Amino acid sequence: MPKQKGSAIRLEHPPCLQSYAAIVGKKEGEGPLGSCFDRVEPDPELGEKNWEKAESHLQSETLSLALQKGGLQIHDLDCIVAGDLINQCTGSSFALRETEVPFLGVYGACSTMAEALLLAGILTDSGCCKRAAAVTSSHFSTAERQFRFPLSYGGQRSPTAQWTCTASGAAVVSAKGKAPRLLGGCIGRICDLGVTDASNMGAAMAPAAADTIQRYLTDTGTSPQDYDAIITGDLGRIGSPLLIDLLLKQGIDISAVHRDCGCMMFDDKAQDTHAGGSGCGCSASILCAHFLPQLADGTLRRVLFAATGALLSLLSPQQGESIPCIAHLVELGAA
Amino acid sequence: MPKQKGSAIRLEHPPCLQSYAAIVGKKEGEGPLGSCFDRVEPDPELGEKNWEKAESHLQSETLSLALQKGGLQIHDLDCIVAGDLINQCTGSSFALRETEVPFLGVYGACSTMAEALLLAGILTDSGCCKRAAAVTSSHFSTAERQFRFPLSYGGQRSPTAQWTCTASGAAVVSAKGKAPRLLGGCIGRICDLGVTDASNMGAAMAPAAADTIQRYLTDTGTSPQDYDAIITGDLGRIGSPLLIDLLLKQGIDISAVHRDCGCMMFDDKAQDTHAGGSGCGCSASILCAHFLPQLADGTLRRVLFAATGALLSLLSPQQGESIPCIAHLVELGAA
Repeated sequence: MPKQKGSAIRLEHPPCLQSYAAIVGKKEGEGPLGSCFDRVEPDPELGEKNWEKAESHLQSETLSLALQKGGLQIHDLDCIVAGDLINQCTGSSFALRETEVPFLGVYGACSTMAEALLLAGILTDSGCCKRAAAVTSSHFSTAERQFRFPLSYGGQRSPTAQWTCTASGAAVVSAKGKAPRLLGGCIGRICDLGVTDASNMGAAMAPAAADTIQRYLTDTGTSPQDYDAIITGDLGRIGSPLLIDLLLKQGIDISAVHRDCGCMMFDDKAQDTHAGGSGCGCSASILCAHFLPQLADGTLRRVLFAATGALLSLLSPQQGESIPCIAHLVELGAA
Repeated sequence: MPKQKGSAIRLEHPPCLQSYAAIVGKKEGEGPLGSCFDRVEPDPELGEKNWEKAESHLQSETLSLALQKGGLQIHDLDCIVAGDLINQCTGSSFALRETEVPFLGVYGACSTMAEALLLAGILTDSGCCKRAAAVTSSHFSTAERQFRFPLSYGGQRSPTAQWTCTASGAAVVSAKGKAPRLLGGCIGRICDLGVTDASNMGAAMAPAAADTIQRYLTDTGTSPQDYDAIITGDLGRIGSPLLIDLLLKQGIDISAVHRDCGCMMFDDKAQDTHAGGSGCGCSASILCAHFLPQLADGTLRRVLFAATGALLSLLSPQQGESIPCIAHLVELGAA
């Protein structure tokens, strides 16, 4: 049964991450983490007729692979918690419509994997489910044409822009099993400090990440040196130093343990992605392919995974709105 | 601590619905339930510059009113679970960005109120929160221009079309207090029987409602006569008889206790809405203004609230896709 202490949620019988998988696109596969991923898809359309179907295909393949790696069948799941960036989250609803598994749709933009994992953990720890999956995806081309320009337009990208990754991550949270374990987490609060530039989401999201990390450290009475890594999802090269500065002003120095998935996905020099990677699938795939295996083999003992999301639409900046952001957090441990 | 039996989730210490409110637009206020709602907003723009801001304003006002009716402040909430129909759920994120309360964004289309209530109930019963709010909204004009045509185009509506309500409902779920209580629920499964007509969502959603209601009745060993009402959210005049037929074929007769919010919102003859009302706010506002007060005063003793959602986007039918649907359910009781 979970317990609340301030904003921190502690899971009393920490469920395990029984199985997980990540599949990425060609460009992501050519990045520094390329060899970690379970599969690299060379075809951006995955044999489908359009990019939206391709993203759904990618997500459903990733969940299938996570199940397969754990020796599980789809009906071994009591629930799937999933979401994505496509309008009305159709990336997930079309990916999962044939599963016949109870489905909770969530929307947290690029924070989705942390939100989904936290809910899957609470559902499992509280006895609502024996086994729940957290799944998400993003696709460069679905995001680009929905939020920015038609791809054929060849629009020039801002130096502060991030590259939406073609990637998906899926993790099965189970009441029984061995490490890695989901120890607790923190539900994010919406933070909006007035950034209006939709091409600089790292800057917009940094305050949300700082808020969530600070609240969790305070409420659990822990400090950055208690963790082997404090991982953020997709602040990129602009937002990451801002996060470190914001926390330093509160007397918290995470610089020694901070890792950002947006900075890790692509090679800064060899791959032209400006401020780094983004998209729900960026942090989800790096968590499932890079960090969870290291928690499983004990290379990492205890980490925080704080995925950040920018809760804007195509329309909202056009209506003069600033960008509300959020960061959800889960704590993961090797024991 | 919740317990799972099959698909049914039972809350061990059923939390109470401490306070709730509903605000609707002018047309909804002129319907048969007009006098139930806490407030009828005569101005479709609520004094804002555009409809999207108006919907956010409507949602934030409704939450404020729910808190006020319960003698609560915003910081008495540990979490808000919310979602809406606008792309990337900006109706909710902009409505709630100043609350400083942990926020879980959900996407269930018009099933959102049941999904949010079920999650708020699980979070409260399991000890993650002392008090969590479930909130949603819809607005005729934000939905019409996003999913259908520019309003000024004056497009003719199909006879099977439903009218997206300008309405919002908010309910505060609390670990302590008196009835109505949230006794349990059921997470919906995605059902897609191949309906491709986005103007006939009642027909598309009926199988999802049938699936969830049947699973809940089976897993709890109850039958329709155990309930004073089995409420669906927005099958309308086309989908409602289909639901009754689908369940009859399984040997379950809900006809004596079935109520559909889509059929209840508008006067079939005097108000030109074709197949009835829809939108996240339709069932949410009718639940909060009509059914919850009757559970509080004992007029109703035990009801099921199954809200249905069509998980399509503007784009998906244009790409030849059928409409995946879902229905989430909560059981509410007077004791």
